[in-house]
Amino acid sequence: MATIAVPPSVPSPAEDAEQLQKAFAGWGTNEDLIISILAHRNAAQRKVIRQTYAETYGEDLLKALDKELSSDFERSVLLWTLDPAERDAFLSNEATKRLTSSNWVLMEIACTRSSMELFMVRQAYHARYKKSLEEDIAYHTTGDFHKLLVPLASTFRYEGPEVNMTLARSEAKILHEKIHKKAYNHDELIRIVTTRSKAQLNATLNYYNNEFGNAINKDLKADPNDEFLKLLRSAIKCLTYPEKYFEKVLRLAINKLGTDEWALTRVVTTRAEVDMQRIKEQYHKRNSVPLDRAIANDTSGDYKKMLLALVGHEDA
Amino acid sequence: MATIAVPPSVPSPAEDAEQLQKAFAGWGTNEDLIISILAHRNAAQRKVIRQTYAETYGEDLLKALDKELSSDFERSVLLWTLDPAERDAFLSNEATKRLTSSNWVLMEIACTRSSMELFMVRQAYHARYKKSLEEDIAYHTTGDFHKLLVPLASTFRYEGPEVNMTLARSEAKILHEKIHKKAYNHDELIRIVTTRSKAQLNATLNYYNNEFGNAINKDLKADPNDEFLKLLRSAIKCLTYPEKYFEKVLRLAINKLGTDEWALTRVVTTRAEVDMQRIKEQYHKRNSVPLDRAIANDTSGDYKKMLLALVGHEDA
Repeated sequence: MATIAVPPSVPSPAEDAEQLQKAFAGWGTNEDLIISILAHRNAAQRKVIRQTYAETYGEDLLKALDKELSSDFERSVLLWTLDPAERDAFLSNEATKRLTSSNWVLMEIACTRSSMELFMVRQAYHARYKKSLEEDIAYHTTGDFHKLLVPLASTFRYEGPEVNMTLARSEAKILHEKIHKKAYNHDELIRIVTTRSKAQLNATLNYYNNEFGNAINKDLKADPNDEFLKLLRSAIKCLTYPEKYFEKVLRLAINKLGTDEWALTRVVTTRAEVDMQRIKEQYHKRNSVPLDRAIANDTSGDYKKMLLALVGHEDA
Repeated sequence: MATIAVPPSVPSPAEDAEQLQKAFAGWGTNEDLIISILAHRNAAQRKVIRQTYAETYGEDLLKALDKELSSDFERSVLLWTLDPAERDAFLSNEATKRLTSSNWVLMEIACTRSSMELFMVRQAYHARYKKSLEEDIAYHTTGDFHKLLVPLASTFRYEGPEVNMTLARSEAKILHEKIHKKAYNHDELIRIVTTRSKAQLNATLNYYNNEFGNAINKDLKADPNDEFLKLLRSAIKCLTYPEKYFEKVLRLAINKLGTDEWALTRVVTTRAEVDMQRIKEQYHKRNSVPLDRAIANDTSGDYKKMLLALVGHEDA
């Protein structure tokens, strides 16, 4: 379900590194060449290219890209080139910083990655920032956001298909009771959302919907402007229908006056190798326009070329 | 710092498996033979013996031991034979069950294992119980115990030596302020104890001691019978001076009228390959009697032989 197109016969990492080095050399930078290489290599291939580049030219490829590129195009290439776990560690660290703080990004990473992927983000966070992800989240968040985000980022959910229907029933009732009393930050509600396996949570929410007549997220919309409720609804969406969540982030980013490039870049670079195909289908269905056309209309230059290559646009 | 004695030349796993099978065969069981093999093999060796046994005799070695042995001796051999991560998963699962529930065991495992070891316990828990450790802890605990134990078991602490002294200072002040107000379950206090690296926490507590005149655990003794405060003090001890914590558990287990075999077996089997040497030194210092003599005086039969072998008693 990835959307990037890796050519059937890929040059050796040494050749790729050499071409990249040529793209940086001389007057100006050859952005097309950079895109033609990096946007068409998978994570494992990019990793070897980065290692080979460092060994051959004595400089981290990311540093070189940082010097040569700028603005949105730069950010998209840098994020894309990073190893997925490192990239998520970088994005979540950014999300705990004052000026770039974002509970959304933290929630998104915690809820849409697999248990092992999330654990690898935590390992990459140790290596890069000399502290732990949950330590920074706990330190930089407060109140209900703290109460939801710390366990979301610390959990190691079971991923098997087993579902306990009796439990689903009893926990659906607990959820309904707490929501009915507007106790949206209740320990039990947080416990269920942050610790149950995605399969179990899904069963619980299906029961909720069948038994109480509304999808849970409808009942959690009591106050549509409440920021905590928004985050909670999104967490539930990420845990059960991630492609719907990402479709909406893209839709809002593209429709926004001026385009939200940070969100657009983040979703495209983090999902291109995961579930972008599904997200594209969802986007087309919901907006009656293909995602690549929407992106093409809303962006320009090398940034546009990079994004289109990542979402698998035919000519890119 | 392990105390078990592995002979310089170890028989092949096939030979060990064969000897074990002989120990089970015929009239009665040869307990001495079982101890002479299993108590003198390290975790990696025991793992291969278990695999070889299963391949050769078509039965899990643990099942065979379970059939042949009984009571405290059985429990000590079974716990010891388990892979460390599996053993901790087993002990913590037991600690979430109604009849064997124990916040102490959960806290002990969460606080005294390395970050990676704790993560491996969580993986072993998935494999064995088809759910997650934090899921079971969150479900089976309530109130302040829940608030402390869930993040303790979910955390993946940074383990580098880096210490931020400014942070140590400011967090020591926060701790002192909360304790002064008797807000022992305050979010900030829990955050500091559950997310900071052991090195950072230690620096914070040293600052606390220097600046406010008391070790934190002294200030946390306001009500000596408060169960939550007891657990919190023990968690702090486990995180900073694990050998002192374990010495005390052994002391209480041995001095108890009737001996607490569960605690004794747990500490001996889980620490024999880790830091039992230090615990023995601490025990001798605090009780003026060597640990092996205390164990010998308080236990008997095969159980006694097994424990003495694990704590490195010369004749065992």
